[in-house]
Amino acid sequence: MKKILIINGPNLNMLGIRKRELYGNENLEDINNFIKSQVHDAELTFFQSNSEDEIIDQIHAAMKLYDGAVINPGAFTHYSYAIADAIEAVDIPVVEVHITNIHAREEHRRKSVTAPYCAGQISGLGKFGYILAINWLLILNTN
Amino acid sequence: MKKILIINGPNLNMLGIRKRELYGNENLEDINNFIKSQVHDAELTFFQSNSEDEIIDQIHAAMKLYDGAVINPGAFTHYSYAIADAIEAVDIPVVEVHITNIHAREEHRRKSVTAPYCAGQISGLGKFGYILAINWLLILNTN
Amino acid sequence: MKKILIINGPNLNMLGIRKRELYGNENLEDINNFIKSQVHDAELTFFQSNSEDEIIDQIHAAMKLYDGAVINPGAFTHYSYAIADAIEAVDIPVVEVHITNIHAREEHRRKSVTAPYCAGQISGLGKFGYILAINWLLILNTN
Amino acid sequence: MKKILIINGPNLNMLGIRKRELYGNENLEDINNFIKSQVHDAELTFFQSNSEDEIIDQIHAAMKLYDGAVINPGAFTHYSYAIADAIEAVDIPVVEVHITNIHAREEHRRKSVTAPYCAGQISGLGKFGYILAINWLLILNTN
Amino acid sequence: MKKILIINGPNLNMLGIRKRELYGNENLEDINNFIKSQVHDAELTFFQSNSEDEIIDQIHAAMKLYDGAVINPGAFTHYSYAIADAIEAVDIPVVEVHITNIHAREEHRRKSVTAPYCAGQISGLGKFGYILAINWLLILNTN
Amino acid sequence: MKKILIINGPNLNMLGIRKRELYGNENLEDINNFIKSQVHDAELTFFQSNSEDEIIDQIHAAMKLYDGAVINPGAFTHYSYAIADAIEAVDIPVVEVHITNIHAREEHRRKSVTAPYCAGQISGLGKFGYILAINWLLILNTN
Amino acid sequence: MKKILIINGPNLNMLGIRKRELYGNENLEDINNFIKSQVHDAELTFFQSNSEDEIIDQIHAAMKLYDGAVINPGAFTHYSYAIADAIEAVDIPVVEVHITNIHAREEHRRKSVTAPYCAGQISGLGKFGYILAINWLLILNTN
Amino acid sequence: MKKILIINGPNLNMLGIRKRELYGNENLEDINNFIKSQVHDAELTFFQSNSEDEIIDQIHAAMKLYDGAVINPGAFTHYSYAIADAIEAVDIPVVEVHITNIHAREEHRRKSVTAPYCAGQISGLGKFGYILAINWLLILNTN
Amino acid sequence: MKKILIINGPNLNMLGIRKRELYGNENLEDINNFIKSQVHDAELTFFQSNSEDEIIDQIHAAMKLYDGAVINPGAFTHYSYAIADAIEAVDIPVVEVHITNIHAREEHRRKSVTAPYCAGQISGLGKFGYILAINWLLILNTN
Amino acid sequence: MKKILIINGPNLNMLGIRKRELYGNENLEDINNFIKSQVHDAELTFFQSNSEDEIIDQIHAAMKLYDGAVINPGAFTHYSYAIADAIEAVDIPVVEVHITNIHAREEHRRKSVTAPYCAGQISGLGKFGYILAINWLLILNTN
Amino acid sequence: MKKILIINGPNLNMLGIRKRELYGNENLEDINNFIKSQVHDAELTFFQSNSEDEIIDQIHAAMKLYDGAVINPGAFTHYSYAIADAIEAVDIPVVEVHITNIHAREEHRRKSVTAPYCAGQISGLGKFGYILAINWLLILNTN
Amino acid sequence: MKKILIINGPNLNMLGIRKRELYGNENLEDINNFIKSQVHDAELTFFQSNSEDEIIDQIHAAMKLYDGAVINPGAFTHYSYAIADAIEAVDIPVVEVHITNIHAREEHRRKSVTAPYCAGQISGLGKFGYILAINWLLILNTN
Repeated sequence: MKKILIINGPNLNMLGIRKRELYGNENLEDINNFIKSQVHDAELTFFQSNSEDEIIDQIHAAMKLYDGAVINPGAFTHYSYAIADAIEAVDIPVVEVHITNIHAREEHRRKSVTAPYCAGQISGLGKFGYILAINWLLILNTN
Repeated sequence: MKKILIINGPNLNMLGIRKRELYGNENLEDINNFIKSQVHDAELTFFQSNSEDEIIDQIHAAMKLYDGAVINPGAFTHYSYAIADAIEAVDIPVVEVHITNIHAREEHRRKSVTAPYCAGQISGLGKFGYILAINWLLILNTN
Repeated sequence: MKKILIINGPNLNMLGIRKRELYGNENLEDINNFIKSQVHDAELTFFQSNSEDEIIDQIHAAMKLYDGAVINPGAFTHYSYAIADAIEAVDIPVVEVHITNIHAREEHRRKSVTAPYCAGQISGLGKFGYILAINWLLILNTN
Repeated sequence: MKKILIINGPNLNMLGIRKRELYGNENLEDINNFIKSQVHDAELTFFQSNSEDEIIDQIHAAMKLYDGAVINPGAFTHYSYAIADAIEAVDIPVVEVHITNIHAREEHRRKSVTAPYCAGQISGLGKFGYILAINWLLILNTN
Repeated sequence: MKKILIINGPNLNMLGIRKRELYGNENLEDINNFIKSQVHDAELTFFQSNSEDEIIDQIHAAMKLYDGAVINPGAFTHYSYAIADAIEAVDIPVVEVHITNIHAREEHRRKSVTAPYCAGQISGLGKFGYILAINWLLILNTN
Repeated sequence: MKKILIINGPNLNMLGIRKRELYGNENLEDINNFIKSQVHDAELTFFQSNSEDEIIDQIHAAMKLYDGAVINPGAFTHYSYAIADAIEAVDIPVVEVHITNIHAREEHRRKSVTAPYCAGQISGLGKFGYILAINWLLILNTN
Repeated sequence: MKKILIINGPNLNMLGIRKRELYGNENLEDINNFIKSQVHDAELTFFQSNSEDEIIDQIHAAMKLYDGAVINPGAFTHYSYAIADAIEAVDIPVVEVHITNIHAREEHRRKSVTAPYCAGQISGLGKFGYILAINWLLILNTN
Repeated sequence: MKKILIINGPNLNMLGIRKRELYGNENLEDINNFIKSQVHDAELTFFQSNSEDEIIDQIHAAMKLYDGAVINPGAFTHYSYAIADAIEAVDIPVVEVHITNIHAREEHRRKSVTAPYCAGQISGLGKFGYILAINWLLILNTN
Repeated sequence: MKKILIINGPNLNMLGIRKRELYGNENLEDINNFIKSQVHDAELTFFQSNSEDEIIDQIHAAMKLYDGAVINPGAFTHYSYAIADAIEAVDIPVVEVHITNIHAREEHRRKSVTAPYCAGQISGLGKFGYILAINWLLILNTN
Repeated sequence: MKKILIINGPNLNMLGIRKRELYGNENLEDINNFIKSQVHDAELTFFQSNSEDEIIDQIHAAMKLYDGAVINPGAFTHYSYAIADAIEAVDIPVVEVHITNIHAREEHRRKSVTAPYCAGQISGLGKFGYILAINWLLILNTN
Repeated sequence: MKKILIINGPNLNMLGIRKRELYGNENLEDINNFIKSQVHDAELTFFQSNSEDEIIDQIHAAMKLYDGAVINPGAFTHYSYAIADAIEAVDIPVVEVHITNIHAREEHRRKSVTAPYCAGQISGLGKFGYILAINWLLILNTN
Repeated sequence: MKKILIINGPNLNMLGIRKRELYGNENLEDINNFIKSQVHDAELTFFQSNSEDEIIDQIHAAMKLYDGAVINPGAFTHYSYAIADAIEAVDIPVVEVHITNIHAREEHRRKSVTAPYCAGQISGLGKFGYILAINWLLILNTN
């Protein structure tokens, strides 16, 4: 059974509180539970941090411990070249996920400095984005 | 059973021929067959065109005929505000899909003028991107 | 009696459906009928197309058939240098019309690549914009 | 009978003198007389000033005295955010008019900082632009 | 007792009328009275003008007559290098005040050409911004 | 009595050492003591950190513990969209303060990515900026 | 004998009519006849269309039917990434030709989005540009 | 004897006070007297105003009253398209003068919107710039 | 027999050594000999220099000595406005040639400051570019 | 004997793993050992962190503990104005080092926000860059 | 008697030939003779070169030999930072002169990289520009 | 013993004269002597020129005569794509050196067009930069 790491970046611990009209009423634990209830054929590990360096450390560590990773870098998406380099440094597939459609919000949210170093990006599909990304990681190298 | 329209834009009829190191060896029919083999709980209609106006017409028509649409606008992604307006005009959910990671290629491919008017965007996940998008449309309003 | 061609570009066939808070509830036929009811001293021909090349062909043909043209290029306004060249190529006066005030919407709608090759531009005056443009074409060379 | 204010900005008192190949040989009085001769069903007031503050004051005063206004802000079009704010502050409809096609001249003339706060804009239709704008103000809320 | 000049620029005489959801229902006189009611240990002079040159003249004159000035340049904030030069020319401390948070509105409102020549800037704190600025001028050189 | 949190970001622990001609000779403790000596009708908590995530955590925590916050994000002002999101996520008023006039220094210091999500911004008024911000928070909802 | 396809894009059917001071008095048929009269050692096929999709289809088809192609994409040069992708997709050599010197005209004409995917570009040499391009295709792989 | 108008724009009445290390210690009257003492073969009229409209009016009036004009538009140099249009409107030669070298100061001072409509520009040569400009106007059409 | 000057700019004396995968293995002498072997009906003069001024001098001299010129300005293409001015100054036709497709390389190579002043430009057609340019100069004014 | 601090930023703990074709096969410990083996006349302290705040704290602390510092800020080079401010705040010489030539990689790596506040920068000279930087710090104030 | 060096840059030896509608019919020798005929109280040396390095050498040498210099850098104005540095390096006053009004021509001619390092700039005043510049150098330090 | 060429570009012959507060009091000969006194295990050749083409020629020649080169291109750093191409053309290692920290000076000095084609760059370390660069060339391929 594949091992997948799900990383959520800064302010995602505020889901259910922050801008609910955009992000919905569920908090991060609700979403993580929902993901677990939907994905049965993988070993999932959830990690959230508001700290850039903790996220970098997790990505580094992931190389040996996981078969793939899903990352929602939150606002780090738009400026953390350090996280981008961390993703580039490890050789496991990483999928970037955004709950909202970043292309339909403030201008600065349209640019992702991390996406060029990921396998791909899913945005705007809500909590399902995580599940789709996990599904892709599970399919990968199987087909 | 939900009805889903899958639209592929210009040059996607050249899959299996064009830049195979990026797009793979399968042609569009192979991919469509693969999608059909994976999605059982939806009625799928496939449409490919190199013509901007035919795509606009399909999107308009889709409003009455389908429950949702998946679109890979090909190069139109980067300049067809007409297709963007068409997507905005209809009230069914549309998901934008790109086979390759557009954020990791030439600069002009990073900008999508259509994405702000879609529900979301999936890029870089190969032919699976279509399937994930369809799955999301099927989940939508069900959960 | 002068002959005037009225060209409407992509998605204007969706009037009455698309973004009604901006464009109003009337569909294109309603608007065309209204124009006809208001303009008595001209022979009006109405043409709508979502196709860039059909619009180009119409403009080319207009040179011999009409005394002037009114064009609402829809989204083509913002990128179709081909339509711009077509307008430049013919020697009849062409007036650009936009139903909404393009200067008060998304940034990309503020730039018109076709306007520099038209006689002038009317925007934001709703369906009356067409009538004003026709009136101007009728006045032209008469005063 | 509706009351309409027509405001002409800086250098429009030089019409008939300045760049005649572009603006024609008629001076502002000729044009105003022509407008008066064409518009019979409105009470017209003409105001010209080279002063930004006098124009702002007129716009403010217009709110109580007129049913609508036509403004050709001249060069203020391109930088007077103060006039733009004045237009935004009053609740009567204002139409921006330019005698020449500002989209076909120097780059700096293409940008209007006032247009986003007007109901619409007419450019390139010569002195008739004023008449069309007045006609629109007269039609407004009547249809 | 220190003498302080409070300058309000174009359209601030429309407070209570213009965009009340942003600026509130009080007019300029209400605000000035409120300021007077809160500041007891200074001699306050209030000046409002829609005229760039009158404001420049006031700033010049202020050098000899006042111990400091508070200025809300209104829309001049964004382009009047002439007012900026006037502030730079006098050697009394000047504080720039904006009622609304200019950083949270249209792009063009984020740039202040006058702020680099002021001692500082207060924005977004409503009518209290004036009082805070006055308080700072009173504290200055006292501590 | 209202509870107010004062957050100082990176390098503000170097006050009194760094660029004294700009920031003055007092260290952060001196300034905090001065603030305490001036503000009697509020319960003040002081927090300084060079860590982006600690600041984010403090902002999150502030929502339940404080009636408002004053933040000098230091250099994070110019790029930390993560702190900006944190401010947006909480529903207490936050005022941004800068000791120096950021509009009169290097180009990169003029742009604040956090200010759009604050209630307002005070810059250039030295240590008094903090006191003015606190005063505003105390006045708020009292008047 | 090599087979060469010559593609002319939008508005080139207006040669002899449009902007004759730039493009000359000959129409497209005149030019095609001239080319045929000058090139004897190749089988030439001429194709003109104002339609982006017809041009894309021709390029796709060319891969199997021709040894090389000459393309004057007209205004599509400046924005049709779809035609650019079509050229990239086929493995026959394609030479871009412009009758006028695009570097000496309006700013927008200086940028070619198709040229990076062609073997080369010839501009400014009038109708001879086509002949030189054909000659190069004939020399290719012969030397 | 030729009649020359010398126009000085905003804040030049602060010469001798404003930034003396750049502009020197002489006030405007000193400089005007110096100019008069050096130019004997012309009738000089001096005009200074902080008002954009007064300057525009002077330029308009100059057409009939003077043989040429020298203008130091002060900060209006950088944004007053209205003054630029006024200069363009009159058919007497106008020379732009700046006391300091505008190319060696803040970035915004390097751009002149008025210079393209003047005969030429002199900057950085101090009060002598006015005299050189006058000399040139006197030489003009004499040689 | 027409006299043609062929000018090669900086580093073209390194052909056969520099970046052979792009420029091929032949050195400049090989290419010149090849050109001579292909062009029989013209008197060819070859000039290579790494010096901007020597190239300018050659262009000036060419006006009297040659019927036309072919120039590959090498890297001067991208910044030598002095060579551009020299080309503009002489009244013989000049064709710009690049061995590689400059539109498909580094960004800075896409901009030619010299091309606007040439008759036309040929790029990407290898050594044949020179021959095509010569052929065009020979045809010119003959047809 | 001088004391020198060597700081390595985020992802440099991945040396030997990340992009070996660029960074080589040695890990950070190998490199540190190599540096120690080459530098005998200084007391070296090595510090690596993926944390921006830990790096800031080290720089602050360095002021009292070391005679100079060498810093390879990794990706922080491109956006950490906070580290830049920390370097500016301390009065010991700091040299920026990059193992690879940042000017020859992705566009975003060419801009260093920290370099303006360092004494100098060395890039592209591999692990030797550290040694050269140390040597310079040792020479400093000795010659 | 002061010694003045007059430097003319590339293509100014083509005066009387190049673009006569702009530059007039006189050649450089005519202009130099005219200057000599007008300036009696200075020792003038004329130098023209198309070579950047010769101009740099002259500027360096000028420091010991002349009291001031007038330079028309021709096209070098727009890119030769090397000449700019040479001017900065010497301690004699240098005045930049342009025969035509560079602000009224192509965009690239509006930017001078040399002007910031000169004492001032005169443009658009024809051959008289040189004389005015010389006059200024003669006045300097005399008044 | 390795042979190293040290190239100094324009205005470096003015060291000791130009901007001494930045570049110091030593002239180029002093610095060269200092370098010679410090480097014993290499054969050093010094070359200085203000001429772009002489520098290009030296770089070309260096390929056969030297084992490596150190270049301080002076102002050519910022625009000489011709020197950049020369460096790219030769296969010996070249290190770029700047005496001052180019990242801490005028904006235009921050961009190096030559650095991408060098092995690396050293800036801000004064005359020692040359020695460090030489040391690196000596170490190269030895370790």
